[in-house]
Amino acid sequence: MSGDSRPIGVFDSGIGGLTVLRELVHAFPQESFLYLGDTARLPYGSKSAATIRKYTEQNMDYFIRENVKAIVIACNSASAQFMEPSYKDIPVYNVIEPGAQVALAKSQSKRIGVLATRATVQSKAYTMEILKHEAQAQVFDIACPLFVPLAEEGWDADPVTNLIVYRYVSQILPQHVDTIILGCTHYPLLRNSIERVTGNSIALVDSGEAVTQLLLRDFANGRIKAADSNLGAAVKVCTTDFSEHFNNLALRILRPLTIDSFEVVSI
Amino acid sequence: MSGDSRPIGVFDSGIGGLTVLRELVHAFPQESFLYLGDTARLPYGSKSAATIRKYTEQNMDYFIRENVKAIVIACNSASAQFMEPSYKDIPVYNVIEPGAQVALAKSQSKRIGVLATRATVQSKAYTMEILKHEAQAQVFDIACPLFVPLAEEGWDADPVTNLIVYRYVSQILPQHVDTIILGCTHYPLLRNSIERVTGNSIALVDSGEAVTQLLLRDFANGRIKAADSNLGAAVKVCTTDFSEHFNNLALRILRPLTIDSFEVVSI
Repeated sequence: MSGDSRPIGVFDSGIGGLTVLRELVHAFPQESFLYLGDTARLPYGSKSAATIRKYTEQNMDYFIRENVKAIVIACNSASAQFMEPSYKDIPVYNVIEPGAQVALAKSQSKRIGVLATRATVQSKAYTMEILKHEAQAQVFDIACPLFVPLAEEGWDADPVTNLIVYRYVSQILPQHVDTIILGCTHYPLLRNSIERVTGNSIALVDSGEAVTQLLLRDFANGRIKAADSNLGAAVKVCTTDFSEHFNNLALRILRPLTIDSFEVVSI
Repeated sequence: MSGDSRPIGVFDSGIGGLTVLRELVHAFPQESFLYLGDTARLPYGSKSAATIRKYTEQNMDYFIRENVKAIVIACNSASAQFMEPSYKDIPVYNVIEPGAQVALAKSQSKRIGVLATRATVQSKAYTMEILKHEAQAQVFDIACPLFVPLAEEGWDADPVTNLIVYRYVSQILPQHVDTIILGCTHYPLLRNSIERVTGNSIALVDSGEAVTQLLLRDFANGRIKAADSNLGAAVKVCTTDFSEHFNNLALRILRPLTIDSFEVVSI
């Protein structure tokens, strides 16, 4: 029985999705991955639903042309605009559904906070997904528009970042949530700053960990076929714009994982 | 003798160019303006030279189709990639040349600082433009990637902004500059925070004021023909993406000027 050696496509507007890629490569070392950072149009989180949906479909069309076996939308703003399970017959994984499910599993009080971009908050995707499974849950979301620029600037261990994180996150604390979804794949990069505000009593949910569980399930049930373990797996990172700053950040985020190639592509 | 009632096109990636539009409308109340904010692809300052040049030409093609009589590139990152004086026979004004000239006129010591986006700093456009006119000048530039997100978030009068401004601007102070160019059209929105760091002894140069002088000259010498003063002038603001947040900020930035219409366009 031969495996399916095609890569898994993973995309985000920028570096955020690398936090998802990092989890996936760790969980599935025998698989090849093709990462697309749509850096020519980054960020998505401040843009309208229609524009984000259009960019998302263009990114997925790129993956279809590149012959991937599955697509992971490693961007919450894009996930909120594409909740369908497949695109042109290729399985698609968004990060909203698994994030909501992991949050419900972790939460005792069912009072759940969501930190996200303006686009994701406006979509109400997390609220709807959580209430679908648990009608009694209460969801408190807040847009944190400066988190993505701080992460993209590489200020993830900086006192100014602590201050800005406090400014946003402290608005949710009076709601006595016991679980907070990091509803943007950039936010795990600011996890240390966020934990300084939330403390030990609030569980944080990371999109990368959550979506990995879905892929584990689907490898097990045969929806995705594993690659042959004796074939070399490769991690290829593509962007729609050239940026040395992006490449340096990418290497830092993925460390100790290595990238087999960087490439600029037109989509 | 009849005038030329066609509008003047002004574009930026987002709200920054509104600081230029504000100056232009104030200086030329009889003229009509068509503002384009390329909010679907904002920001430009973190993107590559080739991508910014492509977006700039697409924006200018939109203005050509809309039959403008002149184009003002109210974005330093775009100006750095388009220094030509015209595009398809329409006069084009970038903000780099007038900014450099005003800085040289204001500076005694010819030690000039430039605060700008990463793209503008990498282009070295200000340094080249200043040295072209004054070979003895010394230019010290610094990229301030968080200024645009802070301005777009509307945190222009916020202690966190003061702190971030200090972090960047204080790096230039040891160079004893006597003039600093606000080399991004968003930065005048943070002028109060910047002045807290620079104090009274450093002159600030604003792109909007600088480019207005060039247009005054060209109205006087006939390169641009004035509109008839008895025809109603209109200010129309278009964006490539719909955003209530943008519209609210735009109204606040332009106040007390009013906008005659808001529209979302495809370019």
